[in-house]
Amino acid sequence: MSKSIAIIGLGAMGTALAKTLIDAGNTATVWNRTSARADALVARGARRAATVTEAIAASDILILCLTDYAAVETTLADVGPMLAGKTVINLTNGRPDEVRAVAARLEAYGARYLDGGIMATPPMIGTPDAFILCSGSADAFEKTREQLAAFGQSHYLGEDPVLAAVSDLALLSAMYGLFGGYLHATALAGSVGFTAKQFLPLVEPWLAAMMTALPDYAERIDSGDHGRDVMSNLSMQSVAITNIVAASRSLGIDPAFMEPIERLAKKRLAAGFGGDEASGLIEAMRGK
Amino acid sequence: MSKSIAIIGLGAMGTALAKTLIDAGNTATVWNRTSARADALVARGARRAATVTEAIAASDILILCLTDYAAVETTLADVGPMLAGKTVINLTNGRPDEVRAVAARLEAYGARYLDGGIMATPPMIGTPDAFILCSGSADAFEKTREQLAAFGQSHYLGEDPVLAAVSDLALLSAMYGLFGGYLHATALAGSVGFTAKQFLPLVEPWLAAMMTALPDYAERIDSGDHGRDVMSNLSMQSVAITNIVAASRSLGIDPAFMEPIERLAKKRLAAGFGGDEASGLIEAMRGK
Ligand SMILES: NC(=O)c1ccc[n+]([C@@H]2O[C@H](COP(=O)([O-])OP(=O)(O)OC[C@H]3O[C@@H](n4cnc5c(N)ncnc54)[C@H](OP(=O)(O)O)[C@@H]3O)[C@@H](O)[C@H]2O)c1
Ligand SMILES: NC(=O)c1ccc[n+]([C@@H]2O[C@H](COP(=O)([O-])OP(=O)(O)OC[C@H]3O[C@@H](n4cnc5c(N)ncnc54)[C@H](OP(=O)(O)O)[C@@H]3O)[C@@H](O)[C@H]2O)c1
Repeated sequence: MSKSIAIIGLGAMGTALAKTLIDAGNTATVWNRTSARADALVARGARRAATVTEAIAASDILILCLTDYAAVETTLADVGPMLAGKTVINLTNGRPDEVRAVAARLEAYGARYLDGGIMATPPMIGTPDAFILCSGSADAFEKTREQLAAFGQSHYLGEDPVLAAVSDLALLSAMYGLFGGYLHATALAGSVGFTAKQFLPLVEPWLAAMMTALPDYAERIDSGDHGRDVMSNLSMQSVAITNIVAASRSLGIDPAFMEPIERLAKKRLAAGFGGDEASGLIEAMRGK
Repeated sequence: MSKSIAIIGLGAMGTALAKTLIDAGNTATVWNRTSARADALVARGARRAATVTEAIAASDILILCLTDYAAVETTLADVGPMLAGKTVINLTNGRPDEVRAVAARLEAYGARYLDGGIMATPPMIGTPDAFILCSGSADAFEKTREQLAAFGQSHYLGEDPVLAAVSDLALLSAMYGLFGGYLHATALAGSVGFTAKQFLPLVEPWLAAMMTALPDYAERIDSGDHGRDVMSNLSMQSVAITNIVAASRSLGIDPAFMEPIERLAKKRLAAGFGGDEASGLIEAMRGK
């Protein structure tokens, strides 16, 4: 069942992917623009390709993990015809327009194209917490199930290659909300003398408790009804939000992270939704 | 041990607090500007006060839970001298300047003043998930330990009355980050056809996995070293952040929530910290 695989791009993530594949017994050919980054992998059993052409020639499956789609375009610029019959899994972060363009180009060369989003940090690769969102060629997904399974759980979202990229960006925006909120909170607490370590035993259980609100939010979002059985009305919350912005400013913390929430809340209030739960802010994000 | 308590303000939260105190066997006098909101509590065993004066006269401990500090000032405007010797617990959301002003005023009248932040939604009151942050008079905290324990765990943060309010606002900003990120994510996923219910099994484990990064972030924040053992460098992350903003716009989702993160990341990049973990964004929030 072991197939020949090339890993193109050996940054923090590409290296973790290559290690995991090698350790699972796959034949892996590696290439990186800066060749020295392949050294440790070669010591571990990878074959070094001197050029992208060499890497592609040696492999059935091509895994791309680069900074951005511009790097993908640059890297594949001269090798198009070689891609006929190959399976290309692009795990580089991208936007829908970029995904469509690359998918169309590679499919025109006769490649099977699978787009993917890695939902994990490098040390999580190969653990049960890691998952990969995939969309595009169903055939490519079937052919690489085993390899993807080495990284973590994989979710195939459908034939449209942009589905994985958009879901990836969606999950990352949830993460940046979490991280941004945590950092803003820690900065505020720090301004009255708490270290991040002291603040952690407050903020961790608090966020875990607030996570339990998400299923109720999801129901409200799908039904469009943010006004039933309200426990934390937006008028009340908007006072707290305004207090956060004002207190941040007075304590020397840039309020920028909290300002959009304040604007969205005020917009909903002005539209007469002060009695709703905060789940209704999604309507303002959707431009309603 | 049961003391006479007045609950001033019977919105969603004041009602939950009053119910919990009554059910724990306390004598509770309740007052609300709109008197009808007291009816269900009176049926449960509370005494209705016709005026704030009546509520204060009947009680040793006064719990305030109103929309904002302006409502607190209005409600206590004419009763100052009655507060001598009373214990006042103000669980209304406020800013440091407001807290200082109210604490000073009430202490001048001879009240013991404890400021508090309720870290729970009303249905969580009385469950192990709920906690109350308190600061101000240590004596007031000691005297009301039992009553506060009925609501949830209580944390006494120190004599300065603003400590609880700032920590409360800090935790709320972490929550708005979580909720804002979740809503933005759900809006993005919705734009390519996923319902909130379909998206939930992706976003919940993802956020739970990302929560495990917080202790490492806390260490980096306290040491000021965001550059050691980097697994997800900010240059790479900044590509994803820019992709989120651009994709949001192209899919009809207001990118406002993500724009400050993009600005903060670009600021750090321009300052030469592209090789750091994203924990370093806190330095930009602190204006560095
Ligand atoms: N690290 C994470 O936590 C994580 C998590 C999930 C997803 N991802 C995704 O994985 C991808 C890679 O991230 P990473 O963390 O590995 O980034 P990284 O450590 O910064 O590595 C970037 C890689 O891209 C290569 N590259 C950049 N521009 C290039 C070009 N013009 N031509 C050829 N190669 C080029 C680099 O080669 P050089 O070595 O020659 O510079 C390097 O191999 C990104 O799309 C990222 O969103 C990362
Ligand atoms: N609900 C939550 O999830 C939650 C969680 C944590 C903390 N809190 C905090 O608890 C406090 C109350 O929130 P809530 O959810 O109970 O809000 P709410 O349901 O909107 O109730 C607001 C209360 O304030 C009273 N009020 C407003 N302006 C007043 C004035 N000028 N004079 C006298 N009374 C006035 C209202 O009286 P009327 O009935 O006459 O309007 C009502 O009793 C807030 O500081 C909030 O931040 C709430």
